[in-house]
Amino acid sequence: MTTDHLPEASAAPARGRPRDAARDRALMDATLAELQAHGYSGLTTAAVAKRAGVSTATLYRRWRSKEHLVVGAAQAWAEDLGPDTDHGSLRADLRALLHDKADALDGASGRLLRAVLGEAAHNRALADVLFEAFVLPLQNRVSALLDRAAGRGEIAPVEDPLVVGEMVIGPMVSHTFLIPHTPGASPGADMADRLLPYLLRALGAPAA
Amino acid sequence: MTTDHLPEASAAPARGRPRDAARDRALMDATLAELQAHGYSGLTTAAVAKRAGVSTATLYRRWRSKEHLVVGAAQAWAEDLGPDTDHGSLRADLRALLHDKADALDGASGRLLRAVLGEAAHNRALADVLFEAFVLPLQNRVSALLDRAAGRGEIAPVEDPLVVGEMVIGPMVSHTFLIPHTPGASPGADMADRLLPYLLRALGAPAA
Repeated sequence: MTTDHLPEASAAPARGRPRDAARDRALMDATLAELQAHGYSGLTTAAVAKRAGVSTATLYRRWRSKEHLVVGAAQAWAEDLGPDTDHGSLRADLRALLHDKADALDGASGRLLRAVLGEAAHNRALADVLFEAFVLPLQNRVSALLDRAAGRGEIAPVEDPLVVGEMVIGPMVSHTFLIPHTPGASPGADMADRLLPYLLRALGAPAA
Repeated sequence: MTTDHLPEASAAPARGRPRDAARDRALMDATLAELQAHGYSGLTTAAVAKRAGVSTATLYRRWRSKEHLVVGAAQAWAEDLGPDTDHGSLRADLRALLHDKADALDGASGRLLRAVLGEAAHNRALADVLFEAFVLPLQNRVSALLDRAAGRGEIAPVEDPLVVGEMVIGPMVSHTFLIPHTPGASPGADMADRLLPYLLRALGAPAA
């Protein structure tokens, strides 16, 4: 797995050093791998540095603590849900969003989210970055597609778009994280297709 | 926090010793506390034994490994969703289930689930027990209430009750686990009330 989709730089390195994108990517890859293997509590900056092939001094120049490193990894692995394209209908917009979410959950960002969800229960900095990186972009896309659908006259304006956002995120997360799946399965994509008609009915649109 | 709701004994202790319910409860309390503080990777049987006030030898007589201890804790803290009472209507049945689920997620079973969800990604025994203890009972209750509603003629028979189960579990889990909440808030209860009209519409029942 690579991190080719990582953004070009969320923060400039300290003291004007030329940014080493390859080194940053190796550190983010290593952080995710260590989180999956050992969880937040079991992760050490020494193990991340070793796995990334850099010295701990190098790691600490970029991330000044273990918490900063993991928060940085959560930002780096934030769900890339792709652009909010107008597909011309509520059904097509929702279907695209569900499949973008499925791809994200079945991939690296889903693995990162799952590995740090427990720690976020008592780590506010991490909880905040998970909200900003994983929840807010989806809620914004849900709001935008609901507005378009109401504008087209497909549905009445939605009273509680946040609940609709949870009805998109929630079943995808619970189906991916709580059901034991056979290796290689794509539980998110399966749930996306089965969820669509129920979501359309919940919004007052024809399901078929 | 106590574990007064723990079942009376899921397994008899080895070698016919008189069962020490208080000791078992202390061990389950301690396991949950250590999981919350240190995650699965950071949990040690020595720390659990010390917190419970027993020797590690005593712990090992009951649980022969760390994995058995945590799987046992997941079973002990399985969601107690309460009885599946017929409340006379789909709306009342669903409302009761959502609030039972909210109570569970806001309580000890929700904290246990959150603390071990990451580990379950690569621990099949744990994933299986989470499914049996947290997902299956809810899916069964959803199926039962949907059958009753169809029997009353409130809705047509539901084609995909598993998806409806995910629409109950999922938004409750994502709203409780992914949104930063102020201490003392009851996010599950709030989401239960807001979700209800959308779920009813998804099932083809009048929302109001």
